[in-house]
Amino acid sequence: MAFQAGGPHAQDRGLEAVVYAYEDMTRTPAVARWEKPQGKRDPLVMEKHFTVIPRGIGLVIGCSTFPTWNSYPGLFASLVTGNAVIVKPHPGGVLPLAITVEICRDVLSEEGFNPNIVTLAADSAEAPLAKELALAPEVKLIDFTGSTTFGNWLEDNARQALVYTEKAGVNCVIIDSTDNFRGMIGNLAFTLSLYSGQMCTTPQNIFIPEGGIETEDGHKSFDEVAAALATGVEKLNGDDARASAILGAIQSKATLERIGEYGKGDNVILASRSVPMDGFDGATIQTPLILKATDESSYTAELFGPISFVVPSKDTADSLKIVENSVKNHGAISFGIYSASDEVLDAAEDMACRVGVAISFNLTGGVYVNQTAAFSDFHATGCNPAANAALSDTAYVSNRYRVVQSRKHI
Amino acid sequence: MAFQAGGPHAQDRGLEAVVYAYEDMTRTPAVARWEKPQGKRDPLVMEKHFTVIPRGIGLVIGCSTFPTWNSYPGLFASLVTGNAVIVKPHPGGVLPLAITVEICRDVLSEEGFNPNIVTLAADSAEAPLAKELALAPEVKLIDFTGSTTFGNWLEDNARQALVYTEKAGVNCVIIDSTDNFRGMIGNLAFTLSLYSGQMCTTPQNIFIPEGGIETEDGHKSFDEVAAALATGVEKLNGDDARASAILGAIQSKATLERIGEYGKGDNVILASRSVPMDGFDGATIQTPLILKATDESSYTAELFGPISFVVPSKDTADSLKIVENSVKNHGAISFGIYSASDEVLDAAEDMACRVGVAISFNLTGGVYVNQTAAFSDFHATGCNPAANAALSDTAYVSNRYRVVQSRKHI
Repeated sequence: MAFQAGGPHAQDRGLEAVVYAYEDMTRTPAVARWEKPQGKRDPLVMEKHFTVIPRGIGLVIGCSTFPTWNSYPGLFASLVTGNAVIVKPHPGGVLPLAITVEICRDVLSEEGFNPNIVTLAADSAEAPLAKELALAPEVKLIDFTGSTTFGNWLEDNARQALVYTEKAGVNCVIIDSTDNFRGMIGNLAFTLSLYSGQMCTTPQNIFIPEGGIETEDGHKSFDEVAAALATGVEKLNGDDARASAILGAIQSKATLERIGEYGKGDNVILASRSVPMDGFDGATIQTPLILKATDESSYTAELFGPISFVVPSKDTADSLKIVENSVKNHGAISFGIYSASDEVLDAAEDMACRVGVAISFNLTGGVYVNQTAAFSDFHATGCNPAANAALSDTAYVSNRYRVVQSRKHI
Repeated sequence: MAFQAGGPHAQDRGLEAVVYAYEDMTRTPAVARWEKPQGKRDPLVMEKHFTVIPRGIGLVIGCSTFPTWNSYPGLFASLVTGNAVIVKPHPGGVLPLAITVEICRDVLSEEGFNPNIVTLAADSAEAPLAKELALAPEVKLIDFTGSTTFGNWLEDNARQALVYTEKAGVNCVIIDSTDNFRGMIGNLAFTLSLYSGQMCTTPQNIFIPEGGIETEDGHKSFDEVAAALATGVEKLNGDDARASAILGAIQSKATLERIGEYGKGDNVILASRSVPMDGFDGATIQTPLILKATDESSYTAELFGPISFVVPSKDTADSLKIVENSVKNHGAISFGIYSASDEVLDAAEDMACRVGVAISFNLTGGVYVNQTAAFSDFHATGCNPAANAALSDTAYVSNRYRVVQSRKHI
């Protein structure tokens, strides 16, 4: 899985950005002949040249959990539009980007370019470089994935640059009803477990009407749904070898500590357990922690990692209202809903369009709400607090370059 | 001419923005079928829907000199991408936009839309509305043409919105040499006179080597070139009826006062004269004022209106260097060069690409450096201080909307 998301999927997203940028740049012809009729006189005729010029230097600030996947779109979008790029990896995820930069430099040299078009600026938590680099007047493009605090700082302070940010979000799932209860539980169990919930698309809050839901097997109470979800996650991760492959390690100490802290409450529906992994004694692998939400304040902040809440709502209309406000105020990259009612699905899609979040309907098979496919799914919408850009669309690439025109009579 | 630039040319630019936006929005299909092979099992199949959603409310802040031409691109770009638009005209140019808004509302009603999708917010110099509107949280797009001071204020303060600005600039022409002296002088004379230099594309500073230039008729000294230009402008505007048609009225009192003030110096090469117009006794029509630059500080700020400088440079290399710094520091929308040397033209184009300004070579006929044609010429580049966007390109339209996606198995 590290291979998948770190390698081909990251390269997919990089290539996707290249395609968008290439298509956009080539919409303007390099040369055009222009004629203006002048009545009986000869027409005015001009030859016009259009040159794509770069913005300046691009700065890519990597994150720790998916160093390549979250960096490649910005890296390649800036490169293909002619900008040099400085890659500043997260101190906790240097190697994947160091390898990337090394290969970029090799390829640039092989093709006769100056290898310094791509450089690495590794720093440490003690002596961070990001702010200094971000404020350099030569830096005209910044791509960042990470905390809302630093993302907002970049947007507010690096005013000489165009800043593309992906920040924190709180993803939600609404369960209204289902005609495939088993499929729904299986899908959600995998969703919550994959990469230990360390994806920016993993749902955190799962809304279930307090009166329960209708299924193909009849009514199920809130507690029955919550218990089924807990059992599903527990069983999926019952075998240590399989669990460690699905979960992967917990990346940061802060996440580990958060699991410990939140696991102490009296609202635990499924406790997190440590998973041993043969040959990796120091690996910090934890199964997901599932909690029952107490009040709204308990679940509205992002708790990055494998911590999720089942949240009782009055009814699905209430769930929709809460999620709408949550996306508006706290951002979200993914949103899933389960319902056997087309009316409910339509209302959910309307809401998703109002607040700008991608929506997945009734995922009960091999597609998970936290997965997006390059060339088919947009990652983030760019219009809620979780991100100010989408991967990838025209808006993500079209301002990374400009066009300078010349014209002369011929 | 008011008809031309105010009517069809403005509509051209509006339509151009619509075309760019429509093409960009329709690059993403409304519905797509997605299949993922699963080895021997059935493929995963999904149906995905992509919905274009607006940003919110667009605010168009009009300018006084070309109220329609400078407003239509933003107005129509925001409208076609689904945003409602508030039009706030300049207090000195309300009527053209009031008529525009009235027609927009009629058309919206005819087509079954709410006419309030387009509204007019006229204000006065005493009780301005622009800042209040610009900071409204619902306003997500702002298009502005006007002063650098207010443009920068918008960029710095209306952080909830995407802000597209066209601000002040200092356009330059370099004369290196020519094989059509008469054509060059005729072209420049018209360029300086058209609309009394009240176009954001009119050149202000004309650089001529202090040692003079080579022409098809042999060498001409700096003074001879300057005198020919003065004579050209004087003759073009010698007939009052023709002059008033080419010049049009001076729009603002500030411009009139500036002409008076700068006309008092001892560096006047061509004095400005008032032009009477039959039937319009109060019309303030002035022929262009041409000055000889004394030191750099005399010509580096924008002196909006029919005031231009002939500037002696050491040589053309010096001219290029001065213009490069001028564009970088003070912005420019147009740049013209006259040279019989391909080497000089190439160097000028390289410089134009470095600083991001459109360049016109050897205009000696019926095309003028201050004119751009929609669907063929970009207006501004968006990468020097004169404007942060170009009319029109993908970058100008592609972030005015977002795409929200839904997906389900089929």
